Amino acid sequence: MIHFECDYTEGCHPAILQRLVETNEEQTTGYGMDEHCENARALIRNLCEAPDADVHFLVGGTQTNTTVIASILRPYQGVLCAETGHINVHETGAIEATGHKVLPLKSSDGKITAGQIREAYDAHWNDHDHEHIVQPGLVYLSQSTENGTIYSKAELTAISQTCHDCKLPLFLDGARLGYALASPENDLTLADIARLCDVFYIGGTKVGALFGEAVVITNPAFTRDFRYLIKQHGGMLAKGRLLGIQFETLMEGGDDCLYFQISNHAVKLAYKIKEAIVAKGYDLLYDSPTNQQYPILPDEMVEKLSKEFSFAVWSKVDDKHTAVRFCTSWATRKESVDTLIQKL
Amino acid sequence: MIHFECDYTEGCHPAILQRLVETNEEQTTGYGMDEHCENARALIRNLCEAPDADVHFLVGGTQTNTTVIASILRPYQGVLCAETGHINVHETGAIEATGHKVLPLKSSDGKITAGQIREAYDAHWNDHDHEHIVQPGLVYLSQSTENGTIYSKAELTAISQTCHDCKLPLFLDGARLGYALASPENDLTLADIARLCDVFYIGGTKVGALFGEAVVITNPAFTRDFRYLIKQHGGMLAKGRLLGIQFETLMEGGDDCLYFQISNHAVKLAYKIKEAIVAKGYDLLYDSPTNQQYPILPDEMVEKLSKEFSFAVWSKVDDKHTAVRFCTSWATRKESVDTLIQKL
Amino acid sequence: MIHFECDYTEGCHPAILQRLVETNEEQTTGYGMDEHCENARALIRNLCEAPDADVHFLVGGTQTNTTVIASILRPYQGVLCAETGHINVHETGAIEATGHKVLPLKSSDGKITAGQIREAYDAHWNDHDHEHIVQPGLVYLSQSTENGTIYSKAELTAISQTCHDCKLPLFLDGARLGYALASPENDLTLADIARLCDVFYIGGTKVGALFGEAVVITNPAFTRDFRYLIKQHGGMLAKGRLLGIQFETLMEGGDDCLYFQISNHAVKLAYKIKEAIVAKGYDLLYDSPTNQQYPILPDEMVEKLSKEFSFAVWSKVDDKHTAVRFCTSWATRKESVDTLIQKL
Amino acid sequence: MIHFECDYTEGCHPAILQRLVETNEEQTTGYGMDEHCENARALIRNLCEAPDADVHFLVGGTQTNTTVIASILRPYQGVLCAETGHINVHETGAIEATGHKVLPLKSSDGKITAGQIREAYDAHWNDHDHEHIVQPGLVYLSQSTENGTIYSKAELTAISQTCHDCKLPLFLDGARLGYALASPENDLTLADIARLCDVFYIGGTKVGALFGEAVVITNPAFTRDFRYLIKQHGGMLAKGRLLGIQFETLMEGGDDCLYFQISNHAVKLAYKIKEAIVAKGYDLLYDSPTNQQYPILPDEMVEKLSKEFSFAVWSKVDDKHTAVRFCTSWATRKESVDTLIQKL
Repeated sequence: MIHFECDYTEGCHPAILQRLVETNEEQTTGYGMDEHCENARALIRNLCEAPDADVHFLVGGTQTNTTVIASILRPYQGVLCAETGHINVHETGAIEATGHKVLPLKSSDGKITAGQIREAYDAHWNDHDHEHIVQPGLVYLSQSTENGTIYSKAELTAISQTCHDCKLPLFLDGARLGYALASPENDLTLADIARLCDVFYIGGTKVGALFGEAVVITNPAFTRDFRYLIKQHGGMLAKGRLLGIQFETLMEGGDDCLYFQISNHAVKLAYKIKEAIVAKGYDLLYDSPTNQQYPILPDEMVEKLSKEFSFAVWSKVDDKHTAVRFCTSWATRKESVDTLIQKL
Repeated sequence: MIHFECDYTEGCHPAILQRLVETNEEQTTGYGMDEHCENARALIRNLCEAPDADVHFLVGGTQTNTTVIASILRPYQGVLCAETGHINVHETGAIEATGHKVLPLKSSDGKITAGQIREAYDAHWNDHDHEHIVQPGLVYLSQSTENGTIYSKAELTAISQTCHDCKLPLFLDGARLGYALASPENDLTLADIARLCDVFYIGGTKVGALFGEAVVITNPAFTRDFRYLIKQHGGMLAKGRLLGIQFETLMEGGDDCLYFQISNHAVKLAYKIKEAIVAKGYDLLYDSPTNQQYPILPDEMVEKLSKEFSFAVWSKVDDKHTAVRFCTSWATRKESVDTLIQKL
Repeated sequence: MIHFECDYTEGCHPAILQRLVETNEEQTTGYGMDEHCENARALIRNLCEAPDADVHFLVGGTQTNTTVIASILRPYQGVLCAETGHINVHETGAIEATGHKVLPLKSSDGKITAGQIREAYDAHWNDHDHEHIVQPGLVYLSQSTENGTIYSKAELTAISQTCHDCKLPLFLDGARLGYALASPENDLTLADIARLCDVFYIGGTKVGALFGEAVVITNPAFTRDFRYLIKQHGGMLAKGRLLGIQFETLMEGGDDCLYFQISNHAVKLAYKIKEAIVAKGYDLLYDSPTNQQYPILPDEMVEKLSKEFSFAVWSKVDDKHTAVRFCTSWATRKESVDTLIQKL
Repeated sequence: MIHFECDYTEGCHPAILQRLVETNEEQTTGYGMDEHCENARALIRNLCEAPDADVHFLVGGTQTNTTVIASILRPYQGVLCAETGHINVHETGAIEATGHKVLPLKSSDGKITAGQIREAYDAHWNDHDHEHIVQPGLVYLSQSTENGTIYSKAELTAISQTCHDCKLPLFLDGARLGYALASPENDLTLADIARLCDVFYIGGTKVGALFGEAVVITNPAFTRDFRYLIKQHGGMLAKGRLLGIQFETLMEGGDDCLYFQISNHAVKLAYKIKEAIVAKGYDLLYDSPTNQQYPILPDEMVEKLSKEFSFAVWSKVDDKHTAVRFCTSWATRKESVDTLIQKL
């Protein structure tokens, strides 16, 4: 069985494991206050050209989304996001468990627009009874989205401007940020994202780490007491160095760092799959420029492939076709992709 | 200015106030354990033909919805309701503030169907990753709905059966239950509702009381420790007798009780308005058989009427027409309705 | 049976009921935006000499405490209070239900001191691991306390100063504020309290109203969007005028207003009881200068009295003595007090 | 600098790291549904002689406490624990953030008794107004406690019996369970604990793992939908195998498994320290039979030691003495202990 079902079927990139072995006997302070964490923070600030940013390391994505969102919203506020957003559909109500409503906006491809944000904002404040309605208090995007799509610089700039006009902080979930940055269609840098968002995170779990997400808070209005929130949400790892060491390994080396290498590798292979799909005349459910590809295949083909490959069955498109998802990662081999292409 | 904007612009039905005056000097136990509350509970159990039901009195609707829903759901469960449901759009996220997601279902008229509930239930449990998704744990309806529409006996029976099959408790918000029961199109009795729902409430605030909602819990699985929940949610009135006295006054007299008289009066006047709207050739946004009427009027007419009458501007229908809402209540006078009809 | 068990065994002061009757047919806007509420707000601002204060009306005490505290605290903060404080022991965890820890301070008489607040603040910030500990974010007092005791001007000034130094907002629960102000030992005015606290409330439920608490927010940092919080916590009464009308009636007339008359009446009768207790040689559990009196009586006396009078059994003091509580209110008659005294 | 400040200053036991390296390339299902997790579950059930127990793996202790407690309590219930319990003092209000009050019981050594539990239970239910008070809904212990002390079999049996009588589930936090089991004073087995508690966990983070806690639910009443709760609380690791692999490594080999070896090693060295302390005439703050030792030392000694050793300063005992804590772990060397003893 060759696995394309997600980007976290293996352990981690060997370089990370190697570093964990090398540092295992070191004695450090706990809870993320050690030198590896400090060093990783510096590397991230540097790559983001955000020398004053607060950087924190958490274990997983749901935890990170919950902690960031709970840290920003007042009790009667909610978070605007695409109806397909991870926080709306795949976190077992973790946001609501902190008391906040998720305010979904229509989306056909995982993205939302500056116009939709403006409209939702105006709709709230123009309502005569707005005190009876959850107040929009934050905007949540993911880059890349759950559908593999990405925001362009123009789109993110427009959203950022609208958020600024509406005094709505902007939070970008970068669980798969590496794959977005590695996309041939991408025109955003980490520094752009740091400049355009109030908070975002650089995902490790899905981009070669054992686990870990690096939160970057660039708006000083939201840095206060963030470590209390991490602790309260169960995200403060006792052996916090494990996060520091992983992100050190991923982020050293500037533009040629391991994080980008991993992302490039995965996206390159995903494009091979995408080109084969298109060449063979299959349609795509979403036109994704990243490491997730969503072909619409005849049901017999889906059945045949499932004997040799694991992948996600996404949705039934009509009574003879099904959309599926193939994911690539640091661990995907060129030979596996070639085998898949042959069988398509 | 003649008021049609809602059904709570005045104080209360004079008979209630009279009773409050008569009982004012009585000394009673607090927190709803007094004899007036006991008597009101007995009257309600009787009208509902539910001798074993638990009956509790709360102050307002949002509080009641929150308390009931929080008492039933486990932490990772959500409540299915029409997207237009009061808990989804007009309670400032009170349900989410208790940790639970509202799971909205499409609705064009404020109602949902047994089929939609079944579909949502199946969609959840058929999902391979259902543990990552909020689990449906309860169904919320309102009768009459926010759009004035009502469920028929056949519809409510089908919903109740589906809920039973899916082990989903059924909760009916009866903030305007009187007006539903008084509708010429209604074929449900209080006893039917008590039999078909696990919990429901009989609204007082919008049906002639100063305030107050009577919760009826017919499923013994949900009666445990309910008073703790009322207290925690700030709904346990120190002078609880005020609720008992009001519901005594409303519910005495069986089928001819004040609650039904008030409701009949309001619906009768609403039908006069409805008939005039139709006779004059205006369309209705919703075909409501209760005390809320939603004509679509030319904008000039809306402007003209607003000089003499207060009413709710509901939604812009096209660039020349607006839907508005006229409400009637115990306090609406036949002469006011006649004046309105003349001006239409 | 003559009732001394609490200060809310009857309905309301007849003047309030009279006003409700007179205004019953008026048509007003809902949710506290009517003219009676506006007028009551102006009267309260005037009495408090706080022309810029925000004034809001809620239904009950638990609801008010929860709403105010949830509006001020960040998610990882808690509220300092006496271990006997109402929020710590008699609200079924309503504060915790909003996500916040109550941080109890030792107290023998229901009061806490500036020194205790300072100590708790220092203990937190001096702890090396303070991010693992709930941060004190607010101070809660009650005046009068659950034990009938009151803060002097010197004490409240010291607390206010300490709170200011520690950047801890100060919130005073005035469910029984009238009785504190009416005490012969009191040297605080409403204006002092408005000046020394960031938020407080003037209790109606226990001081002659049917129900209702008037929140006064004097620190503009805490006024933002307060109405959203009221709505979310189920405290926004549809017929909000009922609160406005009651507080109008209570607060009209300046220093001679009904609120003060009621309080004076109750405290005067409480002192008659207190003097009789002392004269007859009984001890007091707390030396209360307000409308709650706590004699320690021989068990036979408690048993004998309980045949004719209702009162609260407070605590067993030794195997032959029990502390009880007698409460007076607007409705307590001089004759009832005389009868009680005879039997002591 | 030689570290005795806690039991998590290094990475993990080398055998665990070795196993992570060996399995790194394996492709597995995510979220704890892989074969390593299955195998680890079987090993744990076996050691606990609890073939039907549910076993779940979470990342850290605060997260585990929060998830378990939130899964069991109804909204108005609280959790009884020692006032020094981790959930009461060192989790930044994580329990309260899920809506529940922590109900602290007096404790001088980190332990509570069956008698205290019974008393708290009776006090609640005997209170006339118990609906106004948080209801005890669960008992939380830690073994070993925050003070290094342990419950004997007789004590735990008595507590378990009382909990059963009061229908209070019993939850044991075993973040340091290994060290308790390894104590010379211990007379409990894992099987005893599984039999006497409704839920408990076997701590990995502090006993040689990189991270990870294994929750064992033996009472089937509390297994329902537990994975939803893990996900909602951010504890469902995408690469869940990391937990399975670690616990496999720790738990293989029955009574001679690595988990016990590590624990024995640490406790043996702790006893060397303890014996030296006593021999040199210093007092102990708590008489701990596990891997945490709490000598009371002269302040000059504390200052002197702090130049060569890191350790926790626990509390000031008098103006010349301070209690400190020395911790041992899998990584503590005999030579380090010898050096410390020399300097005492």
